[in-house]
Amino acid sequence: MRATAILTLCLSLLVSFGCATHPGSDPLPSWNQGPAKQALLDFIAETTDPSSPSFVPPAERIATFDQDGTLWVEQPMYTQVLYCFERVRQLASERPELKDREPFKSVIAGDREAIAKFHTAELTEILALTLSGMPVEVFEQQVKAWLATARHPRWNRPYTELAYQPMLEVLRFFRTHGYQTYIVTGGGQDFVRVFAEDLYSIPREKVVGSAGATKYGHDAQGHPVLTKQPNLILNDNYGGKPEGIHLMIGRRPYAAFGNSTGDQQMLEYTGAGSGKRLAMLVLHDDASREFAYGPAEGLPDSKVGTFTQALYDEAQSKGWIIIRMKRDWNRIFPFDAAVPSPAP
Amino acid sequence: MRATAILTLCLSLLVSFGCATHPGSDPLPSWNQGPAKQALLDFIAETTDPSSPSFVPPAERIATFDQDGTLWVEQPMYTQVLYCFERVRQLASERPELKDREPFKSVIAGDREAIAKFHTAELTEILALTLSGMPVEVFEQQVKAWLATARHPRWNRPYTELAYQPMLEVLRFFRTHGYQTYIVTGGGQDFVRVFAEDLYSIPREKVVGSAGATKYGHDAQGHPVLTKQPNLILNDNYGGKPEGIHLMIGRRPYAAFGNSTGDQQMLEYTGAGSGKRLAMLVLHDDASREFAYGPAEGLPDSKVGTFTQALYDEAQSKGWIIIRMKRDWNRIFPFDAAVPSPAP
Repeated sequence: MRATAILTLCLSLLVSFGCATHPGSDPLPSWNQGPAKQALLDFIAETTDPSSPSFVPPAERIATFDQDGTLWVEQPMYTQVLYCFERVRQLASERPELKDREPFKSVIAGDREAIAKFHTAELTEILALTLSGMPVEVFEQQVKAWLATARHPRWNRPYTELAYQPMLEVLRFFRTHGYQTYIVTGGGQDFVRVFAEDLYSIPREKVVGSAGATKYGHDAQGHPVLTKQPNLILNDNYGGKPEGIHLMIGRRPYAAFGNSTGDQQMLEYTGAGSGKRLAMLVLHDDASREFAYGPAEGLPDSKVGTFTQALYDEAQSKGWIIIRMKRDWNRIFPFDAAVPSPAP
Repeated sequence: MRATAILTLCLSLLVSFGCATHPGSDPLPSWNQGPAKQALLDFIAETTDPSSPSFVPPAERIATFDQDGTLWVEQPMYTQVLYCFERVRQLASERPELKDREPFKSVIAGDREAIAKFHTAELTEILALTLSGMPVEVFEQQVKAWLATARHPRWNRPYTELAYQPMLEVLRFFRTHGYQTYIVTGGGQDFVRVFAEDLYSIPREKVVGSAGATKYGHDAQGHPVLTKQPNLILNDNYGGKPEGIHLMIGRRPYAAFGNSTGDQQMLEYTGAGSGKRLAMLVLHDDASREFAYGPAEGLPDSKVGTFTQALYDEAQSKGWIIIRMKRDWNRIFPFDAAVPSPAP
């Protein structure tokens, strides 16, 4: 590197450090003042100040984020399930015998009543058909192609535009202060990896999710190929979340974010660590700007992203922070104008 | 950050950039001039120069390293197996019934002949006894305690002093140029994580290894606990290495290092990627300074770290680089004096 280049670098460092510490800059502009925003600010201040008793060494700064319902929209149905249903329809054009076989028949017919009654056996068949049997690179191309054209029914926008702006700010805020941000999702690891880097600036190696096995072999030309298998080696939900964190990260997080009973064990595991820990749950209580579902606090029940009263009570008793969408977020999506919502 | 602190930072950057580009500094001082050293220097030069056709974007710079026999000594027996045998002996003092039961009886008696005849069934029983059933934190303490006192029979030094100095230089050289260095070991992931950070500057989340399941639950006081289970969810050997790389990293490496048939598929998978890739194999041909085993090139056969003639031939045909310990390394261990070995 030549001296002029080094000086330019030094100057740009001066500028960026200057910005980061400017008293007027708010790292969380889409958050209204309140207990949730304050908890975030306090946590970062206390765990990254070397003179604080709660200081966390940089190597141990791990924060884990559920995806569906925590980082992006999960209603009316998990995005990956919609992907799988669409793949069943596409595959039926090549393999017409699927049209006469349940559970594919109901999916192809768009029979919502039948789909709503699917149990694990039916879902497993659909996942096996659509998420396995192909090389990992082929799967990636299939997901990319779908994401490029699929639209959410309510906003008529690509799913990758439906990440929550306040949570994007949290991810950036944590990384700026030396935290490694990981996704820990019940969704498919290979599915989320396709877009996590562009959408969340979270690289593939920091996406932990439900993972099917792969099998190493060779194609007809003798080239090595990894083929996706139907058997799950990590079911990254409930107790599977701390298990997945141990497998893929090997450290207990200092902060964890979720929104449903599938995240309960990850928050317990995080909160049980020594020193200052942060556990937060997004409560979807804003039907006009996004969705409202619980059943905690008398919100409508939902099979997708269930937030039970028991989870709510555990959060209260353990000091986990509830993020109330209506109260805490003045903006939901990056495409929303930033308009502060009224104080509660 | 105050202005004086920023200026100090800038000055230290100037100094460190100055050092890194000083023409007299050799990033690989323990390597003799030769094809192996040249391959390392060329690979880094070509893949990190933005004007090179082989430039690799920083996010994709992944290099994977086998551990046993590639980063540290594996003879006369894999370190983790020695750990497991010692644990059997320790456990026998609490559970005397083990002394009368095979395969533990042979281990406790130190019956080398019987141990040499162990098959998978016997080894599985020993691994299950010593590597599962306890909380992950307890296992970690057990390994730490053993590492603090165990000594290698030949050098009478802790195993963690027996990493190869030339490979420590490679790890540093790659990281200095933006590569993420991962261990991809057939050994236990939880075992290697205990010391990888101190020994190799490789953090726990970058250790991929054979991994047993864990089970999330609660102890008698209601605290969350992850308990190690006997069932393997990743057997990180042979085809399991590319499978493990996909699971834990999700990117094909640009460089891979191994020393035995268990690394063959990882090198194939790495080499089959587009653009410039580097695949290297350590050949242990130096009985006087370390060990000599093959059976490639007529070296003595070995059940530990087998380097077959077939692997050697595949390396030749695919352009993988053989690192010849005797020819390429002027120093084996950090405690060795740096004395250039004679030219071959």
